[in-house]
Amino acid sequence: MRGRAVLARDLNADNPSTALLVERLAALEPGDAAAALLVLPRRRAVAVLDRPEFETAPDVLTALPRQEAAAFLADMSADRATDVLGLLDGPLRNELLARIEPRARATLKQLLAYPTDTAGGIMTTEFVALPEATTVAAALAHLRTVEQSRETIYAIYVVDSDQRLTAAITLRRLISADPSAAIITLSAGRPPVVVHSDTDRETVASAIRRHDLLAVPVVDAAGHVLGIVTVDDVLDAIIAETTEDVQKFGGLEAFHAPYLQIGFLSMIQKRAGWLCALFLSEMLTASAMQHFEAELERAIVLTLFIPLIMSSGGNSGSQATSLLIRALALGQVRLRDWWRVVFRELPAGLTLGIILGTIGMARIGIWQGLGLYDYGPYWMLIAATVGAGLVGIVTFGSMAGAMLPFILQRLGFDPASASAPFVATLVDVTGLIIYFSVATVILSGTLL
Amino acid sequence: MRGRAVLARDLNADNPSTALLVERLAALEPGDAAAALLVLPRRRAVAVLDRPEFETAPDVLTALPRQEAAAFLADMSADRATDVLGLLDGPLRNELLARIEPRARATLKQLLAYPTDTAGGIMTTEFVALPEATTVAAALAHLRTVEQSRETIYAIYVVDSDQRLTAAITLRRLISADPSAAIITLSAGRPPVVVHSDTDRETVASAIRRHDLLAVPVVDAAGHVLGIVTVDDVLDAIIAETTEDVQKFGGLEAFHAPYLQIGFLSMIQKRAGWLCALFLSEMLTASAMQHFEAELERAIVLTLFIPLIMSSGGNSGSQATSLLIRALALGQVRLRDWWRVVFRELPAGLTLGIILGTIGMARIGIWQGLGLYDYGPYWMLIAATVGAGLVGIVTFGSMAGAMLPFILQRLGFDPASASAPFVATLVDVTGLIIYFSVATVILSGTLL
Repeated sequence: MRGRAVLARDLNADNPSTALLVERLAALEPGDAAAALLVLPRRRAVAVLDRPEFETAPDVLTALPRQEAAAFLADMSADRATDVLGLLDGPLRNELLARIEPRARATLKQLLAYPTDTAGGIMTTEFVALPEATTVAAALAHLRTVEQSRETIYAIYVVDSDQRLTAAITLRRLISADPSAAIITLSAGRPPVVVHSDTDRETVASAIRRHDLLAVPVVDAAGHVLGIVTVDDVLDAIIAETTEDVQKFGGLEAFHAPYLQIGFLSMIQKRAGWLCALFLSEMLTASAMQHFEAELERAIVLTLFIPLIMSSGGNSGSQATSLLIRALALGQVRLRDWWRVVFRELPAGLTLGIILGTIGMARIGIWQGLGLYDYGPYWMLIAATVGAGLVGIVTFGSMAGAMLPFILQRLGFDPASASAPFVATLVDVTGLIIYFSVATVILSGTLL
Repeated sequence: MRGRAVLARDLNADNPSTALLVERLAALEPGDAAAALLVLPRRRAVAVLDRPEFETAPDVLTALPRQEAAAFLADMSADRATDVLGLLDGPLRNELLARIEPRARATLKQLLAYPTDTAGGIMTTEFVALPEATTVAAALAHLRTVEQSRETIYAIYVVDSDQRLTAAITLRRLISADPSAAIITLSAGRPPVVVHSDTDRETVASAIRRHDLLAVPVVDAAGHVLGIVTVDDVLDAIIAETTEDVQKFGGLEAFHAPYLQIGFLSMIQKRAGWLCALFLSEMLTASAMQHFEAELERAIVLTLFIPLIMSSGGNSGSQATSLLIRALALGQVRLRDWWRVVFRELPAGLTLGIILGTIGMARIGIWQGLGLYDYGPYWMLIAATVGAGLVGIVTFGSMAGAMLPFILQRLGFDPASASAPFVATLVDVTGLIIYFSVATVILSGTLL
């Protein structure tokens, strides 16, 4: 233990920034980091634990004596303490909660009940609320005393005699106001921007952005302030959400750890699930091909273009789906706008299909004309099949890719789950059927 | 014009929030919005123009008399004015700049010179800098006088006699400090967190997050403060970056307008370019298939599994690339870590390939055993070909998908350009070659 104490002093010897201290402690074994936290100045230890980047915090708290761990949790900001508690095993979590004094425990238990992707799940209860009649001078004096214990003092929430929110005042407004004025007189005279505990974290982010806020209050149905979400919590939430969305879009379950720290088994688990599901769905392509076996045997030349045609459908679908996922996430398009999207994607898909179809037909014509490959006597019909197939498949791909996010959102899923591989698989099977159906019509009586 | 003035008063009659006013004005024709801005109280008009969500601002300024437009630009925050100027036509931009007073003009011209995805491109020059010896009381008095004209007064930058940054103090620190103390004594005693004008905006975002800041100063090589980037600018930048990344990942050029406002032509242009490029590359699959024509004719049964095998390669590549794009963007993995990634993706790809290969072989065995389809006398060899092909292709797909973001970043491109369709195309062509090569080895002497 003596070595560890020396280590902790060394860690802190050059008066590092909290961010640097977090990095140093995260690099230690949980036991050593726990010992170091006990030796560090209390304020610094709590600041380290308060950082979301200190991802080993749950392991470090587990390594601490129970009473010390509970004391740290009580001193941490309520939103961060909730996040860390949520990552601990159930029995340990209950044991630690039992050692925290009743009021703080009640707050943490309440926060633990909210889903992590809602305002309730990312809010903190450490905010400043003052009665309407408080003077500016009294408010400033109050801020000075609570400065250490509040997540932000840049927004002051004004409440009426029933503790309901009536206004939100910024500190910049406060410091330039007449000290003897009542704080309610600084209000802009319109109801403050609020969110509810079940508001989605992306909606919270857009409220904060739209109104250029540093924090937004979370209120219950009666208008009582339950907590606040600060802009830095929103920033963390948005970055987490982006990572999840990109991973979902890439066709895998979201990972919550940095890439190099993901264990081999968890890596395989999260990737194999989707990959197998897609593989099993994609087996339908083999069934579709078997169904068209007779056509394939008679016109083997048709197989040459299968990869080209399938991938074009997948690519156009992936374009449309990525456009719509973002448009839905940013609220630029709502569920009820689906028909407007149809009216945009249908002509867009047709036009793109005609462009690709023309290139495809030109490719066959040029290869045939230059003698690079012989597609046989019916090469013009084959070119027509490829061209018409591409128009159909690209149009279908754009429509399917655009509608899938709407369908997922309507069913209560995250539209971002309309991953590129999912869309591609959907379009692959349909694409083959479109291609062979077109071939049957155009080539019937000649090749088929 | 009289109707327009009435309209503007109506817009403002219920004392709406700036966000609501932005929505109302954005819904008007640019000419009407311009007329309304002239009638609105000056402070409100400037607040509307200052909002990034007021996306029609360039059109509205274009519709205003030149002198009025220039006056608005001069009153807007420098970073927002720069963004709007950047979207105007060159001649109009120069004309408006010429009408702005020389100092403000110089600032705007300097800001216009920075790329939009760097700290320089999103910073503002409206910050508070004070000499080291300033007392807390004097600093607070100064903040009160400049409160209206500064983007944030929550961070105060302390400069030495050569105007070089020595410390950053928060307002919360300031209001709880002894009024007679010099502000430099409030410094934590370590150098402030800074970024440079060419720092990538994602790096700026992670500096702000890592150190829990409300703003970060942008300094030149000598340590002079050029400007600051505030947390709300970073939030806007991150959301723009996410949209761009998702669109790039979906295989299209980034759109800067909301989905329903994208013109038909620009929609086709931005999608057709990538789609055609991918289509032309994917034509290599037709060439590859032509190359293996003899094998195809002898063993048409091989074609049945082409879509299945190709898509598995694309899916595993898309998974790996989405993981690595985020890991690189979040700084969890650096360029020099590429070999660590190889050591993780190689076994992961092999394992995933073996899983899919086993399922694929089982599929053939079951269909053959149950008499659902007759793959001929060599069905076991065909199953072996499909299985071995899948192992090779999934491993190659994972490796290619994981390495592509590194190669792109090394070449100076955004790793997010390693879009799902791009990876899929790359893997498709190689996948076919792997599949037919495996087939040649396993089936030679029997089917081939």
